[in-house]
Amino acid sequence: MSEKTNRQWRLSSRPVGMVSEANFDFVEEPIPEIGEGEYLVRNLYLSFDPAMRGWMEDRASYIPPVGIGEVMRAGTVGEVTESRHPDFAVGDRVQGLFGWQEYAVGGRGLAQGTKVPEGMPITWPLGVCGITGLTAYFGLLDLGRPEPGETVLVSGAAGATGSVVAQIAKLKGCRVVGIAGGPAKCALLTDDFGLDAAIDYKAEDVQARIAETCPDGVNIYFDNVGGPILDAALANLAQRARVVLCGGISGYNEKEPPPGPRNLMNLVIQRGRMEGFIVIDYMARFPEATAELAEWVTSGSIRHLEDVQEGIENAVQTFLRLFRGQNTGKQLLKL
Amino acid sequence: MSEKTNRQWRLSSRPVGMVSEANFDFVEEPIPEIGEGEYLVRNLYLSFDPAMRGWMEDRASYIPPVGIGEVMRAGTVGEVTESRHPDFAVGDRVQGLFGWQEYAVGGRGLAQGTKVPEGMPITWPLGVCGITGLTAYFGLLDLGRPEPGETVLVSGAAGATGSVVAQIAKLKGCRVVGIAGGPAKCALLTDDFGLDAAIDYKAEDVQARIAETCPDGVNIYFDNVGGPILDAALANLAQRARVVLCGGISGYNEKEPPPGPRNLMNLVIQRGRMEGFIVIDYMARFPEATAELAEWVTSGSIRHLEDVQEGIENAVQTFLRLFRGQNTGKQLLKL
Repeated sequence: MSEKTNRQWRLSSRPVGMVSEANFDFVEEPIPEIGEGEYLVRNLYLSFDPAMRGWMEDRASYIPPVGIGEVMRAGTVGEVTESRHPDFAVGDRVQGLFGWQEYAVGGRGLAQGTKVPEGMPITWPLGVCGITGLTAYFGLLDLGRPEPGETVLVSGAAGATGSVVAQIAKLKGCRVVGIAGGPAKCALLTDDFGLDAAIDYKAEDVQARIAETCPDGVNIYFDNVGGPILDAALANLAQRARVVLCGGISGYNEKEPPPGPRNLMNLVIQRGRMEGFIVIDYMARFPEATAELAEWVTSGSIRHLEDVQEGIENAVQTFLRLFRGQNTGKQLLKL
Repeated sequence: MSEKTNRQWRLSSRPVGMVSEANFDFVEEPIPEIGEGEYLVRNLYLSFDPAMRGWMEDRASYIPPVGIGEVMRAGTVGEVTESRHPDFAVGDRVQGLFGWQEYAVGGRGLAQGTKVPEGMPITWPLGVCGITGLTAYFGLLDLGRPEPGETVLVSGAAGATGSVVAQIAKLKGCRVVGIAGGPAKCALLTDDFGLDAAIDYKAEDVQARIAETCPDGVNIYFDNVGGPILDAALANLAQRARVVLCGGISGYNEKEPPPGPRNLMNLVIQRGRMEGFIVIDYMARFPEATAELAEWVTSGSIRHLEDVQEGIENAVQTFLRLFRGQNTGKQLLKL
């Protein structure tokens, strides 16, 4: 890592289709000066989430797009190395939208930042105790509303959000079936996370396997992927099923949105509900949820997996791991 | 009408794609004998609903499929001409699933039947005070939950259910935009039903016109059609929008379900909810709803339109009017 300069990835063009390094400039700049009320952060870990693909698009959404020429926005954790902010001192561990760079100015714009809770491992705020875990928590508990004995189906079940959804559902007394790619991830689901069954979408007929592993139908489907897997889940709904739409990674790099599920009208026959959400709407309840998640991880009720790559120069390649299905658990990059 | 025989339409084969007369046998049988606890009904009006297309398919649903060789199931109203049932007397006006035929046995199987309320025009139980109006009532009020000032978009707005949805939404203080086919239906929506705008899906760019007529987005979309119109509505959702899935007539005669909406992921960005329902689940509340609907029609708050064709021999052709978009209001056949 350079000690004198700040290496950054700046968005240089809006991706059409799959993201590539050609959409970014990798630049080296002086470490920024901080003003009154600001602080300097040295990033230690960058967080990668599928939703960041949406931030690269020039369209209105729940958060403004990243501007051309701006450092790519990302959640990170780091350490305060200088401060002119009353609430942050040198040495504080902080989390915030500090972006794909080695150093960032905190206390400015979207990069206000907050401290990492005392005693919490520094990467947790990016994963199980951050947006990822909170998305799992509110999506499953508030929208899905699992009841003991119900069958919960989760796609992207070896991913950051899916793995937490699956394990919370087990804690709530549900039968849980996970969908993931490849035998290693499927073994993780059943052997390590204790799920009742796993479906390998790369090797198996997903719709047939859902029917087989969920013989009474799916009460809650937590969808992280969209596309044909969503369609297969819709074909297997139980009455009054809840479909929680968390994201549609399968379509994020398509030039136009792919066709939706053919089995949508099963929502009528089964009186089903499909609902989307954005976790930032639950911000007021983040403290209670974070505390409960941290307790579950600390007590061993939930296993928190991280996939840690290294080196700021690998940021784009690390991001692409999400779309190639290469990550197991939360995708991070250590600087 | 034959006085001595009973002309019937019996399902002879399961339609693949669009229904045609070739899927039925038009037969003439003796008027049936009734047993103890049964009564004989002379059908006066047959009711036609898009959902009947689903009953012709050999698949599990909320009601068993019509068997090959059986009289086509349909809601009807009629008059009791013989009775060995303690609750029904000759001359009583009745409604029930008495099918595409001139005479039916009541008090048997799915054809239990009930009396038409005293003083109610005989066709109302098939339309605004029957399944059609009840579907509009519960779908809009229970799933859509309209608030004054919200924007409600309704497809099939000149149809039996859509026209009632649109008018109830106006009663509840909403801005209402209707989608229908052709200038005559669109004029009906704005001039007779008092809607705020109408969109002619046969002549206009539906998505652009929704954006234009619903500048703050769509709070409630009541979907009677599915397909590209559902997609166009999804592209124009307001935050926390509710999409009420009533049916998908555009796909009912397709050999396989058509692809779903590309804009489904807007449910995530807008935190929207899409929900299907089957009106029979609300049976316990039918009396209150029917009473309120009857009051609205009687007081002139809701206009009830009927499209009345004639002659049992025209049953299949009358059914097809629904899929050709030819009906305005409730499609009936007078015998």
